[in-house]
Amino acid sequence: MEKPMTNGMKGTWLPIQASRSARNTINPIRRIVDRMKISPNPAKEMISLSIGDPTHYGNMLPPVEALEAIVEAVQLPTCHGYAPSFGTLDARRAVAQFWSRSNYIVKPEDVILTSGCSHALEMCVDGLADSGDNILLPRPGFSLYVTLCQSLGIEPRFYDLLPNEQWRADLSHLESLIDDRTRAVLINNPSNPCGAVYSEEHLRQLINICERNHLPIIADEIYADMIFSGNQFHFLGMLSENVPVLSCGGISKRFICPGWRVGWIVIHDRHNLFKDTIKPGLMDLSSRILGPNSVTQAAMSHILSETPDSYYDDILQQLQNNAEFVYNSLLEAPGLRPTMPQGAMYMLIAINPSAFLDIQDDKEFFTKLLCEESISCLPASVFGIDNFIRIVLTTPMEKTEEACQRILEFCHRHAKTIA
Amino acid sequence: MEKPMTNGMKGTWLPIQASRSARNTINPIRRIVDRMKISPNPAKEMISLSIGDPTHYGNMLPPVEALEAIVEAVQLPTCHGYAPSFGTLDARRAVAQFWSRSNYIVKPEDVILTSGCSHALEMCVDGLADSGDNILLPRPGFSLYVTLCQSLGIEPRFYDLLPNEQWRADLSHLESLIDDRTRAVLINNPSNPCGAVYSEEHLRQLINICERNHLPIIADEIYADMIFSGNQFHFLGMLSENVPVLSCGGISKRFICPGWRVGWIVIHDRHNLFKDTIKPGLMDLSSRILGPNSVTQAAMSHILSETPDSYYDDILQQLQNNAEFVYNSLLEAPGLRPTMPQGAMYMLIAINPSAFLDIQDDKEFFTKLLCEESISCLPASVFGIDNFIRIVLTTPMEKTEEACQRILEFCHRHAKTIA
Ligand SMILES: Cc1ncc(COP(=O)(O)O)c(C=O)c1O
Ligand SMILES: Cc1ncc(COP(=O)(O)O)c(C=O)c1O
Repeated sequence: MEKPMTNGMKGTWLPIQASRSARNTINPIRRIVDRMKISPNPAKEMISLSIGDPTHYGNMLPPVEALEAIVEAVQLPTCHGYAPSFGTLDARRAVAQFWSRSNYIVKPEDVILTSGCSHALEMCVDGLADSGDNILLPRPGFSLYVTLCQSLGIEPRFYDLLPNEQWRADLSHLESLIDDRTRAVLINNPSNPCGAVYSEEHLRQLINICERNHLPIIADEIYADMIFSGNQFHFLGMLSENVPVLSCGGISKRFICPGWRVGWIVIHDRHNLFKDTIKPGLMDLSSRILGPNSVTQAAMSHILSETPDSYYDDILQQLQNNAEFVYNSLLEAPGLRPTMPQGAMYMLIAINPSAFLDIQDDKEFFTKLLCEESISCLPASVFGIDNFIRIVLTTPMEKTEEACQRILEFCHRHAKTIA
Repeated sequence: MEKPMTNGMKGTWLPIQASRSARNTINPIRRIVDRMKISPNPAKEMISLSIGDPTHYGNMLPPVEALEAIVEAVQLPTCHGYAPSFGTLDARRAVAQFWSRSNYIVKPEDVILTSGCSHALEMCVDGLADSGDNILLPRPGFSLYVTLCQSLGIEPRFYDLLPNEQWRADLSHLESLIDDRTRAVLINNPSNPCGAVYSEEHLRQLINICERNHLPIIADEIYADMIFSGNQFHFLGMLSENVPVLSCGGISKRFICPGWRVGWIVIHDRHNLFKDTIKPGLMDLSSRILGPNSVTQAAMSHILSETPDSYYDDILQQLQNNAEFVYNSLLEAPGLRPTMPQGAMYMLIAINPSAFLDIQDDKEFFTKLLCEESISCLPASVFGIDNFIRIVLTTPMEKTEEACQRILEFCHRHAKTIA
């Protein structure tokens, strides 16, 4: 207190603590994977099957039409200013049209543009629940859901997906978790990490549970229409008569441009249960960071309507070829049981530790595979389930073949009984 | 309870309530302005002096170098994937260099890229304070600060800026507000809506208060270097020896591209008070929505280093010409007292209701000016201070002249004594 004008309160500073939300914003992938201090085998070229970024190898890139659309848009003097924080009418109209179906029309005023699907999910979670509330999440599930809930003080409550039933939700488990602080059920279809595509019947079962418990649905439909032959995709919001649905999507996966950061929320609300509450709430929340890049918004209509079907057919064909190749190859690997995905970009592979001499769980499988074979995958414990690994199906076929070859050798080398 | 499987809990749905954060995300500009049901005079062409979007009239647009940089970047196959959520090294390096000075080097590892400066501010507020804490904000001040604090349950506490001292902060008022729940002081320099540019001396006074109270600074420096001749801009983080500073910036204003949504946080932390707490906390918070558009990130280095000085000189000259013209014109208007800004893009003009026959406050001035003269400005009550209006200085000179002419006529028409 000698020099009150320059040293009034305390002598030395202590480190400044981060807020609860910053401390609780935990990315499980980084927490688990980054802490394993391991490096690939220097004698083998690295093959990455770990990241959900399809652009990595150059075999999947945005359509030329999308690139042209950006080049065109950036020349417009009108596309550099602030757009409405929930998106330009033009871009919302393009999304509405893109996600309409012959028997169900999405209206532009029910679309909110966001900075990627991640931001759409953040806004839905933040808009529906308060700290202390809970939201039901799929397990295994995309890790961002937990990150967002914990960051916002919302309790993530996990309903099981059933590995032996093509990752359908365990309905009675789901319903048993609901209490009076439950604010929503999050459903991811087609799903990451499972690659599941739910049937109309299963989606209706999920809707029924939500209906009788008066719970809205957050539908993560970023992989909408990303399905392999023999499957059908249904929007939850179109099937639901009575349950309001916030459907989250974006261009990241469909147009292979995850860095562009354009996503959206489509509000399905036939009975106006969101009209004066959640809808204006989401529009207000969008004003915190003012929406996605305006040039990409100006390009949206062109991107969504001018990209030829052949572009997407080719992407789907690559994904399906990879899925089939990996599935057939790894069926023969001792200790592994692949599940054939129905859509999206991923495959989960069960690991049977008792079949291996020296691999105790998915994390050890992941570590040793990386050290010995220079192949990175993800231990599915980052998605909430043990003894699975997730691989991505976006690699060029020659990398896929090489990777399967190495995984096979690896499994044989570590198997208890040499097959 | 007749059909427990389909109608277990309740009969009819009630509207679904929005969360506290959604309900508390209030944009004062929209609340005040949108609720006034008024329309411009159909006989007069509308002149907008209300929005901080300089691209509106086409006289201020992004530099051609920036447009070229986007066109170039979008062709790169490597710029479409996920970037690190806190930004690519390349873009962070460009920002670090851009905000370094000969005697103070910013390091790329102290830069976090964000989706606009708004997002930078959101992350700083969210990262430093919990709900129930308070942050000191300037009054008058940019309305987003209040929006963010209230959305996050943080109490906004306002320190006065002094209209008769070029909007310097009232230091003793500021210090009197600090208590044990105060987590940071937000300082906006150059400022919106005041157009103030603080002297080195005043900035040091502010730093001293923060130092003796052990409070970090959030510096909103989005208008860094946007100053009129005779003024000097100083980064708070460079002046501060001991107080850690989170400096928020972006390309929105400097390169006239607010729609592009690229901003940043520069962490100034000489004594590592943020190193293991706030810095990783901010990096974790960035993982919620995964940073700004990757194409613009890929263009950043080109935009920041290749835009010639003449581009910015011209923008500054237009702003300063407008400021001088408006100031000199409105000095003669009865009932108005303009304050000559030192930088940024705005001017605050005091209104003396007692000089008018039928104008009771800034809101009525705003309303009548719009109805009669088709000129939109903003009543400064949206920024927390009564009986000022804010006008933007980005219009082409002929619009500025026309607007001043109409404002003069308007004031004369409503003045008690005809001048
Ligand atoms: C299921 C799921 N939802 C959302 C996202 C995020 O998408 P975006 O890149 O548009 O934020 C991903 C990305 O991998 C995902 O797998
Ligand atoms: C003082 C101030 N800070 C921040 C912002 C937001 O900038 P951005 O468009 O980069 O989010 C503005 C925009 O008007 C502003 O005036």
